[in-house]
Amino acid sequence: MFKFTLEKKSSQCKARTGTIETNHGVIKTPVFMPVGTRATVKAMNNDELKSIGSQIILSNTYHLYLKPGQEIIRKADGLHKFMNWDRPILTDSGGFQVFSLSKTRKITEEGVQFRSHIDGSKHFISPEKSMEIQNDLGSDIMMAFDECVPYPASYEYTEDSMKRTLRWLKRCKDYHKNTDKQNLFGIIQGGMYKDLREYSAKNTIDFDLPGYAIGGLSVGEPRDLMIDLLDFTTDFMPENKPRYLMGVGTPDYLFEAVEHGVDMCDCVLPTRIARNGTALTSKGKLVVKNAKYKDDFSALDDNCDCYACKNHTRAYIRHLLNVDEILGARLLSIHNLRFLIKLMENIRKSIEEDRYLEFKDEFYRNYGYDYHQKCDNIK
Amino acid sequence: MFKFTLEKKSSQCKARTGTIETNHGVIKTPVFMPVGTRATVKAMNNDELKSIGSQIILSNTYHLYLKPGQEIIRKADGLHKFMNWDRPILTDSGGFQVFSLSKTRKITEEGVQFRSHIDGSKHFISPEKSMEIQNDLGSDIMMAFDECVPYPASYEYTEDSMKRTLRWLKRCKDYHKNTDKQNLFGIIQGGMYKDLREYSAKNTIDFDLPGYAIGGLSVGEPRDLMIDLLDFTTDFMPENKPRYLMGVGTPDYLFEAVEHGVDMCDCVLPTRIARNGTALTSKGKLVVKNAKYKDDFSALDDNCDCYACKNHTRAYIRHLLNVDEILGARLLSIHNLRFLIKLMENIRKSIEEDRYLEFKDEFYRNYGYDYHQKCDNIK
Repeated sequence: MFKFTLEKKSSQCKARTGTIETNHGVIKTPVFMPVGTRATVKAMNNDELKSIGSQIILSNTYHLYLKPGQEIIRKADGLHKFMNWDRPILTDSGGFQVFSLSKTRKITEEGVQFRSHIDGSKHFISPEKSMEIQNDLGSDIMMAFDECVPYPASYEYTEDSMKRTLRWLKRCKDYHKNTDKQNLFGIIQGGMYKDLREYSAKNTIDFDLPGYAIGGLSVGEPRDLMIDLLDFTTDFMPENKPRYLMGVGTPDYLFEAVEHGVDMCDCVLPTRIARNGTALTSKGKLVVKNAKYKDDFSALDDNCDCYACKNHTRAYIRHLLNVDEILGARLLSIHNLRFLIKLMENIRKSIEEDRYLEFKDEFYRNYGYDYHQKCDNIK
Repeated sequence: MFKFTLEKKSSQCKARTGTIETNHGVIKTPVFMPVGTRATVKAMNNDELKSIGSQIILSNTYHLYLKPGQEIIRKADGLHKFMNWDRPILTDSGGFQVFSLSKTRKITEEGVQFRSHIDGSKHFISPEKSMEIQNDLGSDIMMAFDECVPYPASYEYTEDSMKRTLRWLKRCKDYHKNTDKQNLFGIIQGGMYKDLREYSAKNTIDFDLPGYAIGGLSVGEPRDLMIDLLDFTTDFMPENKPRYLMGVGTPDYLFEAVEHGVDMCDCVLPTRIARNGTALTSKGKLVVKNAKYKDDFSALDDNCDCYACKNHTRAYIRHLLNVDEILGARLLSIHNLRFLIKLMENIRKSIEEDRYLEFKDEFYRNYGYDYHQKCDNIK
């Protein structure tokens, strides 16, 4: 079961709303997806995730393959049962992590040999292996095994890699065993070269898959270049399939993604900066750890409806962070995730009411954001 | 407001039930009190604490004096508001921590000079200072500033220390500024010497305080000696005042405490062993981290009604602990606390029905506990 319905298109830009129906429920888009790398969204439990409106979560093939291992999750009858999450799950293919986390790796046509970042043990993941693992995980949306080319990279390297990713995509599609319940998304690569992006987009879309992702953006390139390439790429993507921009999660980049026709985004940013003591608020970032909040008995964000804002003060949360108490990370994680999910809910509403640009202006006015400032996106 | 009502006395032993009424609600005794040293019960939030039946929590004068500092909590209008906990709070006096955590300390008649275990800075806490801090914290039950004599200690040292603790108790009572809302408990010391215990008990009780604690037990002495001294001490304690045995939290010691007439216990054990991967269950301790649970898809404890047992498996919790995810510590903490709180609820019920010994036998039969085995209590 997988059905994408395009609902409303903005008259102001490429923004759009829709729904994705899966075996584990409906996802209203645009959507921000919290990341639960190791079968848990860091510091959160499932009830909390639902309470803040998480419609779908991500998890990670590479991490789960290493620990606890695919057999255990297969024995549990899949990731949903293993972690007791009954809403949709999207799994990353492991490609990005094999390349970014493993110190030594060897790419061949067959796949990637790498060493575990945990214990240095040798492993090999091919497109087929990634599909096998993801079939065991039973995720609703599976990602094709690809190479995310780093920035900067030469034209030649980028072209070779992108074409190999396309060959790997064919092998992924051919190997995928559970097409009734699990839906394979292809990933458009091509680095910072428009002709390669075009080639990748057209050839990926030729596979006629349930959805498509844009990979290899927000990897360190300048903001303007990222937006230009994003805009360029989505023009090639079919309107009747969901579009997923991988690894994007600052408010700024979420706006840019939606504005250029993207339906789905994910990022570890909200939970990562939470554990470092930073809150996203309607008035901009707030480094709660700062001494100036030591006796500030107001909420993190007066406009927020999350558990942290309804129950606790900046002074208390600062104290918890200061003495490294788990509740501090919990409260900031729930807040930051709610902030981005609510932002997407409001963006969706603004598109429905065809006042997306007005909403964006209003948001930025409160946020105090300088449009021209470099975005400190964290992949 | 403070009222202790003795409700039911066992015909089988010294066990009893009662209620303590405070400005922040009623506590049914016997009660196990979770420890929230730094204004948070580790890994838990307030809603979870309530959901598992926490009637009262502990917090710590020494830790809160160092961080965030008493002024911040005074500005917040007390600890209840600072941490948004609306049920009763008991604060330890700081005495135990000054002696156990600070490397260099100097005891004089006036008080204790010590260095912070955090940054080595010099501080001085006297009975008056402890009362001043606890008055700022606004706890419902305040503990007198005492010295908890280590085990073993000579007769002479123990006698001197115990008599100083009595002189300090007078200064605590004289200085305490908020007797309408906050209730000072005296602490009976005297180490492992019965005549000193008797002297301490009689002289402490002469102060006619709202309640009394037994300190200096469960500090490393043999189990039989501890029980003998406990039994000896409670005989001197008035029936119409609550009795609090400090720092006790294994199932075994909770039974012994109640059986010998104690109403209140606390311990960091359930949350500490949780973070190390051990669960307390109706069938004994379970080291969830062990490899044998890697594909065990049953609950931690079939007889438990906590969030962890209702929602997750041993295999999943083991995975979380194995990869050091916060949710692992959360789930085991909620489970272990619920286990001890429910144990006390069941003990209370068994006293009401005058079948305490039958309940104890039944519990130990399931628990597989060897009565003669040394108890691995953790202060």
